Amino acid sequence: MEKVKAYIEANKERFLEELFGLIRIPSISSIAEHKPDMYKAAEYWKQLMLDAGADKAEVFETDGNPVTYGEKIIDPNLPTVMVYGHMDVMPVDPIDLWDTEPFEPVIKDGKIWARGADDDKGQAFMHAKAFEYMVKNNCLPCNVKFMIEGEEEIGSPNLPKFCKEHKEMLTADVILVSDTGMIAPDIPSITTGLRGLMYWEVEVTGPNRDLHSGIFGGAVANPINVLAKMITQMVDDNGHITIPGFYDDVIEVSREERDLMAQAPFDEEEYKKALNVKALFGEKGYSTSEHTGIRPSFDVCGIWGGYIGEGAKTVLPSKAYAKISTRLVPNQNWEKIAVQFKEHFESIAPDYVKVEVTPLHGGQGYVCPIDLPAYVAADKAYSEVYGKRPVPVRSGGSIPIISEFEQILGIKSVLMGFGLESDAIHSPNENYPLEQFYNGITTIPLFYRNFAELMKK
Amino acid sequence: MEKVKAYIEANKERFLEELFGLIRIPSISSIAEHKPDMYKAAEYWKQLMLDAGADKAEVFETDGNPVTYGEKIIDPNLPTVMVYGHMDVMPVDPIDLWDTEPFEPVIKDGKIWARGADDDKGQAFMHAKAFEYMVKNNCLPCNVKFMIEGEEEIGSPNLPKFCKEHKEMLTADVILVSDTGMIAPDIPSITTGLRGLMYWEVEVTGPNRDLHSGIFGGAVANPINVLAKMITQMVDDNGHITIPGFYDDVIEVSREERDLMAQAPFDEEEYKKALNVKALFGEKGYSTSEHTGIRPSFDVCGIWGGYIGEGAKTVLPSKAYAKISTRLVPNQNWEKIAVQFKEHFESIAPDYVKVEVTPLHGGQGYVCPIDLPAYVAADKAYSEVYGKRPVPVRSGGSIPIISEFEQILGIKSVLMGFGLESDAIHSPNENYPLEQFYNGITTIPLFYRNFAELMKK
Repeated sequence: MEKVKAYIEANKERFLEELFGLIRIPSISSIAEHKPDMYKAAEYWKQLMLDAGADKAEVFETDGNPVTYGEKIIDPNLPTVMVYGHMDVMPVDPIDLWDTEPFEPVIKDGKIWARGADDDKGQAFMHAKAFEYMVKNNCLPCNVKFMIEGEEEIGSPNLPKFCKEHKEMLTADVILVSDTGMIAPDIPSITTGLRGLMYWEVEVTGPNRDLHSGIFGGAVANPINVLAKMITQMVDDNGHITIPGFYDDVIEVSREERDLMAQAPFDEEEYKKALNVKALFGEKGYSTSEHTGIRPSFDVCGIWGGYIGEGAKTVLPSKAYAKISTRLVPNQNWEKIAVQFKEHFESIAPDYVKVEVTPLHGGQGYVCPIDLPAYVAADKAYSEVYGKRPVPVRSGGSIPIISEFEQILGIKSVLMGFGLESDAIHSPNENYPLEQFYNGITTIPLFYRNFAELMKK
Repeated sequence: MEKVKAYIEANKERFLEELFGLIRIPSISSIAEHKPDMYKAAEYWKQLMLDAGADKAEVFETDGNPVTYGEKIIDPNLPTVMVYGHMDVMPVDPIDLWDTEPFEPVIKDGKIWARGADDDKGQAFMHAKAFEYMVKNNCLPCNVKFMIEGEEEIGSPNLPKFCKEHKEMLTADVILVSDTGMIAPDIPSITTGLRGLMYWEVEVTGPNRDLHSGIFGGAVANPINVLAKMITQMVDDNGHITIPGFYDDVIEVSREERDLMAQAPFDEEEYKKALNVKALFGEKGYSTSEHTGIRPSFDVCGIWGGYIGEGAKTVLPSKAYAKISTRLVPNQNWEKIAVQFKEHFESIAPDYVKVEVTPLHGGQGYVCPIDLPAYVAADKAYSEVYGKRPVPVRSGGSIPIISEFEQILGIKSVLMGFGLESDAIHSPNENYPLEQFYNGITTIPLFYRNFAELMKK
């Protein structure tokens, strides 16, 4: 561990310059005009892999954004670790809430501030540098593969096909992913569960044109009012989602496991204070951590309709829209949920309106058993760096592709995340503490060593 | 009547040229860059008044756009009629839906096509020419005042102050306004009631920043979901508005008057077909015409929050907004309603969110009794020109300044509108049938004659 720390100390200026070069590419996958930036990021990753010591690296075309793949095979008899990460980032709106330029990283208060500083440029980059360290210091104990994609933030629509088409190339004993967080800088944790996701856009049409709200108001149903009511009907007063059959496949987590998870430190007052809310709202019968960890949720991610400019315009609009998502727990099938929601939402639409439901994307949940050798290797690596054992936690977030890897490639993933809640991923002022960045680079080679040893037995 | 018809026939080319000159001035009051056009229109109106025979005419400055005032006082003992109209027009967006240039009037299919052809350049202009006829033919039986303002389409923000400051100058026995419509070319009608209005913007704040919907979804109340529920709570399943005290000042219209109003032709199937809706929604116990005519309404005119761009962004937003309006009926006080709504909306906000309610503007409703001498004079004038008595109708729209006239100047208005629904006011391809235009000029002198006679008694 001291050796890798010394290597980091000696090279940190260069590490940061290389990472900043990656961050400066505004690779927003959800905005079409950034397509060229996706290719820039892919080429940047190819060079990172080669510079770090990969035998070969290549930018693969897909039907969407490119995937950069690289590998170093030192011995076919040794175990193979595949690193998965993503080069794309979320949009930066609302831009006026950023204190610095989102794509011009700065270091301030011991943190890197920029879109992608954590998610996932900063975290994926740690693996490139840990790999470089092991190659340069002749201590690489496994074969290594890198697969860095460009569509994670839009639900990885083309990666499953890529995996199916390159199954041979992508064989590995474990997939290592740093795209999650840990509880606190002094409380390491490893994410063992991820929620699934389903995301729709809905369009509610009332009259065939915008109407004068004086001449028609009171006689013609307003599609915004109707949409508001339909949204309201989706969750009852107990926080229970009302879609028929929605909970059918949810596996109730045992009392024992719930008690174990409850040991993770959680201060509800602090949590509320940090969000500046007086009260929380969640499904009756479950704790706040359970609301996000082991239970599904229903959120409107966006809504719009009618006049949204300055001042007042009296209009009874023709249309109202919403972007709606549910987070799903392991064993809930997103394709089944997609249909259940659509049918239910259409069924509760009154005759006054027409409703169109468009599924945008979905993904399965995931569970990593804590007796998996790769999990044990990670557990030990964190213990060495942080001086205490990591807590296994279930995350409320989704990385749908993790379940796809299991289904398509038959490989389990270990989610060695080093992000913190305060990193504000997906929000203005995203940041990543340098301490977490360096600890990540320190921890990863220890994982490789432990994993190689465990696989020998 | 034959004499005025002959006068119109002899002068129609000139009438149209003068009206077109007014229409060609793009006097859009809501767009700041058109401010110079407001002055051009005001000067144009001054010249129109003087040319028609006014003793004097003047362009008055206000804190906003100018007001043109002119008068001809023939005998202080005679009744005085004040004509109110507006020289400003609505914006022309969406411009690509116009078949002709909005500010280059053309005559086609017996109609004038242009922005302002009806609302209100065409209709107000009829009064200038009717006045000219009476002066030139020595048959003016009343004193006449003209007050033409430049901010009607933005809610007349400065006219109340103008009225207060010139109360003496603006004394009159009745205010005559042509800024409304009639049922059909062969079904004359006079608007006897206008709804009032109150308009708010609401802001609902949940967490202090946009959150990752996976990490927080299910545990933290989503302000869009909360706003949707609050909106839903404002109107019950019977279409009744739930704000406590909201209906306190609503005067129930008598069965007799409702039966009278029900004689106005109305085809619900046609109405639905024109709007392309399968069903209507309105307050239980009232007809569709009553929903917009004699009952208040509640509409969300705009809503926004969260991610509203292309594709999917999984976010639990910090804020959600809506623009909310109620149409009020005569005797409901908008200032009282403004407070009632704010208090109620804040009271139903759950602890999960903070709510801010900003009143944007309001206006009183208006009723013109059908036994008012000026109404009777108008009734007779229409009857003579159209060969049948006009139907008294209540309009769902609002002209807040009409109630202000009553409150500030103590003068009732008679709404002698000649517009048709097909005139597409506020929309692309606004038009005004020449027949309505000429009928208006014919009807107005008959009103003056009748009114002078009735006031003698």
